[in-house]
Amino acid sequence: ADSDWKEKAWERLRSQIRPRGSLGYLEEIAARLAAIQGTLIPDVSRKIIFTMAGDHGVAEEGVSAYPQEVTAQMVYSFTRGWASINVLASHAGADVRVVDCGVAADLPQDWPVIHGKIGHGTANMAQGPAMTREAAAAGILLGAGLVERAFEEEGYRLFGTGDMGIANTTASTAIVAAFSGKPVAELTGRGTGIDDQGWARKVEVIERALAVNRPDPEDPLDVLSKVGGYEIAALAGAVLGAAKVRAPVVCDGFIATAGALVACRWAPAARDYVFLSHRSREVGHGAMIDLLGIRPILDLDMRLGEGTGSALAMNIVDAAARVLKDIKTFEEAGVTDTGH
Amino acid sequence: ADSDWKEKAWERLRSQIRPRGSLGYLEEIAARLAAIQGTLIPDVSRKIIFTMAGDHGVAEEGVSAYPQEVTAQMVYSFTRGWASINVLASHAGADVRVVDCGVAADLPQDWPVIHGKIGHGTANMAQGPAMTREAAAAGILLGAGLVERAFEEEGYRLFGTGDMGIANTTASTAIVAAFSGKPVAELTGRGTGIDDQGWARKVEVIERALAVNRPDPEDPLDVLSKVGGYEIAALAGAVLGAAKVRAPVVCDGFIATAGALVACRWAPAARDYVFLSHRSREVGHGAMIDLLGIRPILDLDMRLGEGTGSALAMNIVDAAARVLKDIKTFEEAGVTDTGH
Repeated sequence: ADSDWKEKAWERLRSQIRPRGSLGYLEEIAARLAAIQGTLIPDVSRKIIFTMAGDHGVAEEGVSAYPQEVTAQMVYSFTRGWASINVLASHAGADVRVVDCGVAADLPQDWPVIHGKIGHGTANMAQGPAMTREAAAAGILLGAGLVERAFEEEGYRLFGTGDMGIANTTASTAIVAAFSGKPVAELTGRGTGIDDQGWARKVEVIERALAVNRPDPEDPLDVLSKVGGYEIAALAGAVLGAAKVRAPVVCDGFIATAGALVACRWAPAARDYVFLSHRSREVGHGAMIDLLGIRPILDLDMRLGEGTGSALAMNIVDAAARVLKDIKTFEEAGVTDTGH
Repeated sequence: ADSDWKEKAWERLRSQIRPRGSLGYLEEIAARLAAIQGTLIPDVSRKIIFTMAGDHGVAEEGVSAYPQEVTAQMVYSFTRGWASINVLASHAGADVRVVDCGVAADLPQDWPVIHGKIGHGTANMAQGPAMTREAAAAGILLGAGLVERAFEEEGYRLFGTGDMGIANTTASTAIVAAFSGKPVAELTGRGTGIDDQGWARKVEVIERALAVNRPDPEDPLDVLSKVGGYEIAALAGAVLGAAKVRAPVVCDGFIATAGALVACRWAPAARDYVFLSHRSREVGHGAMIDLLGIRPILDLDMRLGEGTGSALAMNIVDAAARVLKDIKTFEEAGVTDTGH
């Protein structure tokens, strides 16, 4: 991102017909968009959300309230337009593409999804690495390639990320535990809704996965391959792809932020392109947000995934672009400015 | 609002193809819309924001960073589409109507505003009542009538409120001080951007206004007339009008919430129809929010007014309506529900 354009954007924002700073965080978003796209008239009109789907071998440890078959069922519901992401993306004026990064079931080829399956679900990380380094790299390339092509060939200018995968809060918690070094119990939430016993089991499983695999926090690909997931690799890749084509990417909640964290550990410059859509109710999200140092746009106690937070926040990002472009300056409008 | 419809809405929300409660505060908004309109398919498609403008005699005490003439200048900029509210309302798909409730200057009759002027700015509340009870009642009727007619004659279904008026954070602070009984210094913010000396003067002026007028917190019209403003009266009226026609109304920040507070003190049932768009950066807003007991939708450090917060939050309210209507249930979709 280009700091000259950021300064130019702040200059314009400060001279608009309103008290300085009065649009709060919208102004910061607007200035970041200007820096990302190198312009005072950022274009975020064409929007797309990639919902990355994958299964997790660790589901066999009983860490989720739902059985693994729900991943494929939900992917089907996405293709039919029935689900939360369909409704909220449509509301946001965003297209949705669902990507099979590693669903356990074989999805019919005629389903309108991107068939990028890297494996039939990861291995159980409580017993060994979830996947190989090669598979993790393939997941990153999958996500990055999708964003790059959507930008270059189809003209999309604002990207969103989302996830679907039973047990993927378990993997994401392990990722943030590995990077932050914080106790697993402090980072573990209820996912889609487990009880106290299920929560205790989830903590124990994550601790076991970390003990068995010893992921190296200095090596993001090591963390990703040992305790991540295929869809989390693709979510990281989407962020890297967005950074490569210099496009803003709005990340959804806990899982998508885990992907963003991997991406930004790998390539710190990618952080300039990342927006966090919302503060998830999932407890470990706070530690991810702190590590990234990016303020989430919304705080609505959501904990759904699929890209629903990205869809909602895209409207605010779009509003910020319009603020920068369309609100007139005191000079343009001939209104008294006392310099505040 | 109808609690049967609220319960029916929660039933549908709980049976949708996603973990229960996973859309957080969106679900509460959706259930409230169902109760307000008495339906599971709430309609908030036609949106309008009323930006109420008025001047304040207390401006002569030097409580604002801007001179009084800015009120009329900003009203002019609203009519030209140059200002923040124009940009953000357009983004929200909402119409904007600007209402001269009591601007000090005579606005040309050919300006496309609603000419509802009750007086040429209020009297200086630091020396006596800002206005008569009759004028306060006239302001309420003005706001209520506008909303009622827009609902009945033009089919608007979602209302927003906003304000313009130099020195109106001073009046709004006095209102929340009168209702809450809290010390003025704890409730007084920087408004559009005064310095330390200006802040101390503002506190002293508000304390003087309360001492001189002794507004009775049990009598909302007494509070409104003694330390309120013409536009604040109309903002209260807009809430009462929305409650009367059973329509949701999204209130902007500090000033609009002061109006909502007056309305809900007068007619507590009106609270069912009120949404708070955002938590303003203006320090006294927290006390208003506590008194109303309504969670704001956004928290973006905004402190602009004009209805800008309402415009941004309308998109979220609209999203909540779509969540309720459009996300399929487990039964409709044939997806495994484990009952969580």
